[in-house]
Amino acid sequence: METPAASRPLDFERQPETYRHWRLSFEGSVATLAMDVQEDGGLQPDYRLKLNSYDLGVDIELADALQRIRFEHPETRAVVITSLKERVFCAGANIFMLRGSTHAWKVNFCKYTNETRLAIEDASAHSGIRFIAAVNGICAGGGYELALACDEILLVDDGNSAVSLPETPLLGVLPGTGGLTRVVDKRKVRRDLADFFGTIAEGVKGRRAVEWRLVDAVHPTSRFKEKVSERALELAAASDRPASEPGIALGPLAPNISDDSLTYSAVQIELDRAKRVATLTVAGPAGPQPSSVAEIVAAGDQFWPLRAFRELDDALLRLRFNEPSIGTVVLKTRGVVRDVLAVDAALMEHADHWLVREIVHHIKRTLKRLDLTSRSFFALIEPGSCFAGTLFELAIAADRSYMLDDQEQPNAIALSPMNGGPLKMSNGLTRLQTRFLATPELVDELLSETEPFDPAAALDAGLVSFAPDELDWDDEVRLAIEGRAALSPDALTGMEANLRFAGPETMETKIFGRLTAWQNWIFIRPNAVGEKGALTAYGSQSRPEFDFERT
Amino acid sequence: METPAASRPLDFERQPETYRHWRLSFEGSVATLAMDVQEDGGLQPDYRLKLNSYDLGVDIELADALQRIRFEHPETRAVVITSLKERVFCAGANIFMLRGSTHAWKVNFCKYTNETRLAIEDASAHSGIRFIAAVNGICAGGGYELALACDEILLVDDGNSAVSLPETPLLGVLPGTGGLTRVVDKRKVRRDLADFFGTIAEGVKGRRAVEWRLVDAVHPTSRFKEKVSERALELAAASDRPASEPGIALGPLAPNISDDSLTYSAVQIELDRAKRVATLTVAGPAGPQPSSVAEIVAAGDQFWPLRAFRELDDALLRLRFNEPSIGTVVLKTRGVVRDVLAVDAALMEHADHWLVREIVHHIKRTLKRLDLTSRSFFALIEPGSCFAGTLFELAIAADRSYMLDDQEQPNAIALSPMNGGPLKMSNGLTRLQTRFLATPELVDELLSETEPFDPAAALDAGLVSFAPDELDWDDEVRLAIEGRAALSPDALTGMEANLRFAGPETMETKIFGRLTAWQNWIFIRPNAVGEKGALTAYGSQSRPEFDFERT
Repeated sequence: METPAASRPLDFERQPETYRHWRLSFEGSVATLAMDVQEDGGLQPDYRLKLNSYDLGVDIELADALQRIRFEHPETRAVVITSLKERVFCAGANIFMLRGSTHAWKVNFCKYTNETRLAIEDASAHSGIRFIAAVNGICAGGGYELALACDEILLVDDGNSAVSLPETPLLGVLPGTGGLTRVVDKRKVRRDLADFFGTIAEGVKGRRAVEWRLVDAVHPTSRFKEKVSERALELAAASDRPASEPGIALGPLAPNISDDSLTYSAVQIELDRAKRVATLTVAGPAGPQPSSVAEIVAAGDQFWPLRAFRELDDALLRLRFNEPSIGTVVLKTRGVVRDVLAVDAALMEHADHWLVREIVHHIKRTLKRLDLTSRSFFALIEPGSCFAGTLFELAIAADRSYMLDDQEQPNAIALSPMNGGPLKMSNGLTRLQTRFLATPELVDELLSETEPFDPAAALDAGLVSFAPDELDWDDEVRLAIEGRAALSPDALTGMEANLRFAGPETMETKIFGRLTAWQNWIFIRPNAVGEKGALTAYGSQSRPEFDFERT
Repeated sequence: METPAASRPLDFERQPETYRHWRLSFEGSVATLAMDVQEDGGLQPDYRLKLNSYDLGVDIELADALQRIRFEHPETRAVVITSLKERVFCAGANIFMLRGSTHAWKVNFCKYTNETRLAIEDASAHSGIRFIAAVNGICAGGGYELALACDEILLVDDGNSAVSLPETPLLGVLPGTGGLTRVVDKRKVRRDLADFFGTIAEGVKGRRAVEWRLVDAVHPTSRFKEKVSERALELAAASDRPASEPGIALGPLAPNISDDSLTYSAVQIELDRAKRVATLTVAGPAGPQPSSVAEIVAAGDQFWPLRAFRELDDALLRLRFNEPSIGTVVLKTRGVVRDVLAVDAALMEHADHWLVREIVHHIKRTLKRLDLTSRSFFALIEPGSCFAGTLFELAIAADRSYMLDDQEQPNAIALSPMNGGPLKMSNGLTRLQTRFLATPELVDELLSETEPFDPAAALDAGLVSFAPDELDWDDEVRLAIEGRAALSPDALTGMEANLRFAGPETMETKIFGRLTAWQNWIFIRPNAVGEKGALTAYGSQSRPEFDFERT
């Protein structure tokens, strides 16, 4: 099987002016994201993106558009997602792309598209931006999953347009982007109806789609646009976004790329492919930082927390897709603890301002991206580091942390109110709450500590995993990293996916835990990807042949 | 790879007198379950069960013992699980057994052992039976997972005995029986410590095991037995089980087995292997049924709900292990609606009596076993059936239900208070609550309806999926069953696992959803089971070779 990732390094930055697959337009409080996928615009030349089917490149543009709506267009209060194709909304992920992809690519593709769908729901839940799927044609598989991520689904009633999840009957796989979970958990479709729906390729249309809760309303073709506009304006009216404040521009990140490093302004990755280890360093703020809203707005995308976490987000994505052999990421920081805490104080003070709100939620989503990255993360807390507040989240997002305890070199971590609520994980808890499930009372106690923790205090408080002294440090850290690199990468992926999300489950963790894990299983079964599997057979003359034994 | 299942049909009935691997003894309120696995007592001759390692046969005896403690020994209020081997508690699932098993066997083996562990927790939560793991020697992998299922883990402090989960470092797989989930979710071990623990083969012992919450206490060898006894008596003191009532005997089920059928007193399975369909029929109670506690105790294991659900449980297990090619199970009932409702009324009236409590929880566990069986279930509700109350759970446990609407032949379903709480699913909700997530107010409304529902009313209330009339019935049912049989069995397994458990997640659903799905994935990856995979290489001279790409 071909590996798209191997052919050239992927990048994740886009500009609306050069989108190939989407038209993003604005009218008052309503933005329209219209899908118009270029058939020959795929990331690889060996498939054509017919019928608004998509590959990763299409989704990267969608993710970019969502970010720009949030940061560059604070006046936008509702987004209509629709199609510019005649009688087609979206046919879902491109099957020929999937068929030609490695297992790892399929898994990473689904993870990224899931994150984009969740970003839609995050914008709705936290940023006052409501989404309408204006389904103006056939809407299959990933197309329906995109619609499911919206707040409301309006379906054209033209006697033909249906919503469907044909993956199981046609391809022998699951809908890979949260479809099954959102059908029964978000839209609360009765499970027996969902079962029927999930097994019929033709889908459900018209009144039945409404009765079964698969869509919110159907409207005849003649009135469809008008009804969509009406509803978008109604949803926009309830938003708390500012009507007349200017947005900030998200400029290019422009990392410096060499064969074994990736260098942004505040983030650097150094790759040691022979050892399968990357070192990811985040530099804290340097010099005086904006403290008023006016200063923050003036700084725009150069304001340190936005700049650093946009860079971190980009770096994590490049690592996922371009560096599959890197198994362990060593997390470091460099800077001054009190400078990070000062930025945190500004973020907390102005939390209600729309831009600060966006910055904080962006940090939150980036940290979630880290939680969901299937690499081992070890945080090394060394003198000169600044694992404080928001940056301390990196240390507790890591699978383990090591803090050097050397009397000669001061070394400290610190908490801030940013560790107490704004940066929740997918499970709905903060990382501190997840860490201290056994002793929840400890969380508030630790948060009330305004002084930094030295290594002994940090270890005692349970804020770091290990605190070796200077005599043991080198060996202990080296052995931990080498030991990790020797283990089965599959077992580590599974272990981390189970240990990182203790506590309650949410729709989000259900999608990434239960659904993704099952999909990954199915994605390597011969019944899907074998020579006679359904995914392989699709579109050819041959019918799939199954081993019918149930597992 | 060899298929143990293929060599001879498995059966799941055992008698304490002929246990090969466990010694079950009783002293006052405390029972002791002592593991003493016979090395040559495996289900297959090609592995030896050294160091109290186990295969399915060992777990079937454990499951039997748990049932007998509940039903035959109401005086038992605490159970000590320990080992008769010197310096060994339990080495976990036998690795050579796992290596020689098919993928489907591994998955079914883990599912069954998970159900047995959950039965321990169910007895603790609902039956006043507390469990102590008296870990008197090395305790690795599945051995520690057995201990994790107990209320308390006491570890001997002999300088040698440790608890460990060595699956990831030694075998390249996950602990398959809930270990990772119970470590972080039940015992609330900090996730960074759990990460470290999950990667070191030697495990953790002594004080550190207590500090990390991996065990509850350690005691020196000289005082270990005494401390275990003391603690067992303390836990027993808090139980509400009757001190002096006699138990009831669980007699053999003795099904009549032919090549294509399995016939018990109240349950019958007919197999159509060519069509990959089984028809499972449950007969309702016939004639007058016990209505007082005295009558119920006198009826013992012949009381219809206990008898029918013991048979159903056994039938489901035989289906899982012995009939892998059966993809769809058609569920039917035969009997009189009001007779089932009368039995339900007796169960509700005497719910506080220890035996009735055990019967109801047994029904609950059997229905969960059905929920977790990876076959498609279609309920056919026809004239002469008795899908009422407890038996109506079968119709809503099914993936779909079809109810014949024929004016000439009366056909009805009915609800009872048994649908309103006692028979909760793994997700902590009743099946009605799960079904009506979108309209929770409907649940109480429906439960207040004391009259049966005819097909139109049942369809209208959302209690059945479809209600074809007599002209459409044959074709619609036939097409549904044939259509199901044509789909990818893997995709169906994944789809059902996602649709059946809408709503909240619990530790139980986390284990069967997230953990099991990941384990299944790892269990077919070359890094575990390939020629050079870790599971294949274990115990041989060769070291595993991994494809280090992270997925």
